Amino acid sequence: MEFSSKLLENAVNEMSQLPGVGKRTALRLVLHLLKQPQDQTQRLSESLQQMRSEINFCKSCHNISDTECCEICANPNRDRQLICVVEDIRDVMAIENTSQFNGLYHVLGGKISPMDGVGPGDLKIGSLVDKIKSGEVSELIFALSSTMEGDTTNFYIFKQIENFDINTTTIARGIPVGDELEYADEVTLGRSIIHRIPFESSLKSS
Amino acid sequence: MEFSSKLLENAVNEMSQLPGVGKRTALRLVLHLLKQPQDQTQRLSESLQQMRSEINFCKSCHNISDTECCEICANPNRDRQLICVVEDIRDVMAIENTSQFNGLYHVLGGKISPMDGVGPGDLKIGSLVDKIKSGEVSELIFALSSTMEGDTTNFYIFKQIENFDINTTTIARGIPVGDELEYADEVTLGRSIIHRIPFESSLKSS
Repeated sequence: MEFSSKLLENAVNEMSQLPGVGKRTALRLVLHLLKQPQDQTQRLSESLQQMRSEINFCKSCHNISDTECCEICANPNRDRQLICVVEDIRDVMAIENTSQFNGLYHVLGGKISPMDGVGPGDLKIGSLVDKIKSGEVSELIFALSSTMEGDTTNFYIFKQIENFDINTTTIARGIPVGDELEYADEVTLGRSIIHRIPFESSLKSS
Repeated sequence: MEFSSKLLENAVNEMSQLPGVGKRTALRLVLHLLKQPQDQTQRLSESLQQMRSEINFCKSCHNISDTECCEICANPNRDRQLICVVEDIRDVMAIENTSQFNGLYHVLGGKISPMDGVGPGDLKIGSLVDKIKSGEVSELIFALSSTMEGDTTNFYIFKQIENFDINTTTIARGIPVGDELEYADEVTLGRSIIHRIPFESSLKSS
């Protein structure tokens, strides 16, 4: 792509660094900004810069937070003995949306993935093990996505804590509510039969 | 969507103002920036702001340009009697890529579209008419997309200049090179028969 303006070219190049944004899309986005009032670009730029430079992470669960201790960790009504291990803030938001979990979270910040150069040292695993060593936690729920990387991460953490007196669980895998059996993959369907639950408890779920 | 951080929320809200970017995509993009080195966000913000505040338009053809007169208009080898009317810089880039056009452009900056609140006064039509009045132009090529808005814009400009001694043409509509006839729409196929060209000239095209 040849540009008639260096300024435009720079903006398009930077924009196309974002995941899923190619040069053409970047050009479309940048031309859109050019048609809008100047303060829209101003606000976008400033909010991105401010976020990147000033964002904080909760010192306890490592979730993104404006305060030193996030709202969930600071809430006295939440069950401190129950910790749900997740990958990032999107998982926290998704689980919070269900209103079915009253414990705390631990945000790892990723999954162990040697292909992407992410090792255990890049994740917040040490502080999780420390929490468990302190003896205040009775149950750890693994809620990472069930991929190769997620399973590896679960297993790595499990190995580090298996000698402590703590329950470790994972979220249930099974047929999504409302889905037809015939379209389910065999692994999911197989697991949903192995880990079947008493009929009465299925009535209790919201 | 409930966010645990105001900074994050602001950034996501601003990002989701871009066309085709919803809240979820915006969150994904913003979290990506958070994982990258801080200077990537810095560069993105600065390039956008700089582009928006410092960008110039060629005083003659209104294309985006860093100089007062764009490279195309300043090129003495281009045919100044031939002007191609286009919507925006993307069309200029597309036509330049073909290397088949040696005239100048006139960038309208949009199409007449009452639904979107774009009237003739919002486009660079006045300066185009002035160019034609000056008598230096012998042919005007309409290269707007052939939609209702494009046709309206073509017709509006045509009405303003029909009394001047000037050729007005439009780019050929027809079956794209390499396409199968059976998949072409009737209007395009019909026009391609009405506006058929001598076989010899089809051999000349690159």
